[in-house]
Amino acid sequence: MTIQEKFDKLGIDNAPGQEALQKNAVLELRGEPLPGPAVDFSHGDVDAHIPTPGSFEVFAAGVKEGAPMAYTPYRGRKMILEQVAADLAAFTGAPVDPAKNIILTPGTQGALFLAMGANIMPGDKVAIVEPDYFANRKMVEFFGGEMIPVAMNYKESTEKSGIDLAGLEAAFADGARLFLFSNPNNPVGCIYSHDEIVAIAALAKKYDATLIVDELYSRQVYPGTAYTHLRAQKEIPENLITIIGPSKTESLSGYRLGVAFGTEEIIDRMEKLQAIMALRCSGYNQAVFQTWFHEPEGFMKNRVAAHQAIRDAILDVIKDVPGVSARPTEGGSYLFIEIPELDVSLHQFIRILREMAQVTVTPGTEFGPQFLHQFRINFSQDKEKAVAAMQRFVTLLERYRKH
Amino acid sequence: MTIQEKFDKLGIDNAPGQEALQKNAVLELRGEPLPGPAVDFSHGDVDAHIPTPGSFEVFAAGVKEGAPMAYTPYRGRKMILEQVAADLAAFTGAPVDPAKNIILTPGTQGALFLAMGANIMPGDKVAIVEPDYFANRKMVEFFGGEMIPVAMNYKESTEKSGIDLAGLEAAFADGARLFLFSNPNNPVGCIYSHDEIVAIAALAKKYDATLIVDELYSRQVYPGTAYTHLRAQKEIPENLITIIGPSKTESLSGYRLGVAFGTEEIIDRMEKLQAIMALRCSGYNQAVFQTWFHEPEGFMKNRVAAHQAIRDAILDVIKDVPGVSARPTEGGSYLFIEIPELDVSLHQFIRILREMAQVTVTPGTEFGPQFLHQFRINFSQDKEKAVAAMQRFVTLLERYRKH
Repeated sequence: MTIQEKFDKLGIDNAPGQEALQKNAVLELRGEPLPGPAVDFSHGDVDAHIPTPGSFEVFAAGVKEGAPMAYTPYRGRKMILEQVAADLAAFTGAPVDPAKNIILTPGTQGALFLAMGANIMPGDKVAIVEPDYFANRKMVEFFGGEMIPVAMNYKESTEKSGIDLAGLEAAFADGARLFLFSNPNNPVGCIYSHDEIVAIAALAKKYDATLIVDELYSRQVYPGTAYTHLRAQKEIPENLITIIGPSKTESLSGYRLGVAFGTEEIIDRMEKLQAIMALRCSGYNQAVFQTWFHEPEGFMKNRVAAHQAIRDAILDVIKDVPGVSARPTEGGSYLFIEIPELDVSLHQFIRILREMAQVTVTPGTEFGPQFLHQFRINFSQDKEKAVAAMQRFVTLLERYRKH
Repeated sequence: MTIQEKFDKLGIDNAPGQEALQKNAVLELRGEPLPGPAVDFSHGDVDAHIPTPGSFEVFAAGVKEGAPMAYTPYRGRKMILEQVAADLAAFTGAPVDPAKNIILTPGTQGALFLAMGANIMPGDKVAIVEPDYFANRKMVEFFGGEMIPVAMNYKESTEKSGIDLAGLEAAFADGARLFLFSNPNNPVGCIYSHDEIVAIAALAKKYDATLIVDELYSRQVYPGTAYTHLRAQKEIPENLITIIGPSKTESLSGYRLGVAFGTEEIIDRMEKLQAIMALRCSGYNQAVFQTWFHEPEGFMKNRVAAHQAIRDAILDVIKDVPGVSARPTEGGSYLFIEIPELDVSLHQFIRILREMAQVTVTPGTEFGPQFLHQFRINFSQDKEKAVAAMQRFVTLLERYRKH
């Protein structure tokens, strides 16, 4: 394989945030454009849901402090590591040693990349859920691993994620020694049940597999669903990394902050990789971690409630549209919306939607090649604009529905 | 090879900034401690040489602007790319298309990692100068390449770097298709002559090799030495990436800003890798690029002069010490200091220096296994403190000199 062929597999043309760079294609435009304020559902709107109050002020204080904040050890500054470790221990229900078990990273993407790079050798089999975060499969590809897909039958029941546990065991039996999954799931927004988490941990232990649990959205869980932190369970595998960061619910994405915590040996390897990847999470930016888990009274509760209201308003728009459905989000800001057969391809429709209605969404195929009738939206948006955008989507859909 | 063995080769215990984390070792301490203000020569002191005036203000404005600055395409925000591309074209003397030939990265380390990851397949031979920046060899290791060292006889002449051009051609003839080097060199601080640069470009073209030129310190060149940008030469290879960033001379390290620019196909691959590595250079931080090449009148000139004065003061401390020498820095803030035979190993002496004199330096072995009698200092420090620290080094050296 040449370097060109390797990178051909890592397509990013349809990745969230990259849409404006797409080359012009001839689109089959039907009817009049649908006017309305543009909504970019590919990521959250930090103007509609502002960053944690006080975050800029601690950043400013960090710059003012100067040298100790500008350069830190690769894992991060000691005082920040200590605070974050204590908060994550309390949040997840199991201890975190700040000297051994945690590393600050450039965003949660950085944490994922380090965790994958510190565990995959060329030819290694890696189990990945379908659908799951689009970068997961690309990281396996980049590090020369072989992906073994594990199905998630998320439409079956709202009581569990629907992960195919037999399929996961088959992947382990087939030689996979690494399993990465997001919980709450991205793009579906479903949460793994307690029984599913216990079963995954037990299987990983049985097969001596390494687990990477991406809990990015675990602070944004809607009432009615229980969340289970795998790392706090009685029976867990020896090699376990949990990933989280204050980028989403807290709207701190512009600072690129992530954390990985878990098994000492893996954190050691991740530190070595960080040393050649980006040296550290930006020094001054590390100061912003100080606001995390220390938001003003009521801030997180209000934020979760605001997102629940947007979710419900969007579900209300689509509830009576034939062939359109989505599992109600249990955690996070995503809806994975299923659409009926159209006269045009999914990718064409998504480009038409952007062109005619100023609505940007992410095609299901980013999350697994079989998701040809789905797209993902991030509903962390202005509520009225988001509802209007989804109404334009419904209007446009009817112009392309297959009869 | 297991993942453990792979990472065993990426040691970071002696890496700059990591010293405080070293495990306790039994040191042979001789005589009384040498008191004085601690100096960490492993990196520059941004308190002694403050960040570009106005840098925090443009960051603050970026946060205030909100969404357009928080999320950007993977390469960076269009308006920032356009400004930086124009400034780099003017600085280096050859055009840079902002839509095709440039990417913003998390620090220059991020740029190096992306450039190497976008060019190395397992088993590829990669030519690396010795001595050169310590991460270069580690990146080759991580991506599964095979390093071919190219000697640099920097002690021979101050008219050129002393790179072994015959050795470089031999590496290309032996199959190396990638050559990475820093100019000004890190750790020596020497600058490649015009003839050397022209010869490197011609050899790369002849053998169809890819060049990665790390020009991180090219804005900090002292009077008396001419600097040649390889990319502006008449005859250059098809595949060429230049790397630079405002982290060093401009003291903006705390923001983690880097840039890579050059061949479109390579930038395309680097963008794909950035998408899974860290998504983007931190959004808000990108705003700080606006101060780059637009520093207040006289700022850069004064900064270079201030560093020249520190360099000269340090050279003055060591000039009459038998067995101690350093090539005077031509560009950047490093001195690669040679020391005589000691009763203890280089690594032991460096730990003793830290313990007894509060002086932190980086062992020569980080830059090549043969540099057992050298250490690197970054003299971007408070001048008085740096001179006093070097005097303590000389005092301590005499206690350990081999007789």
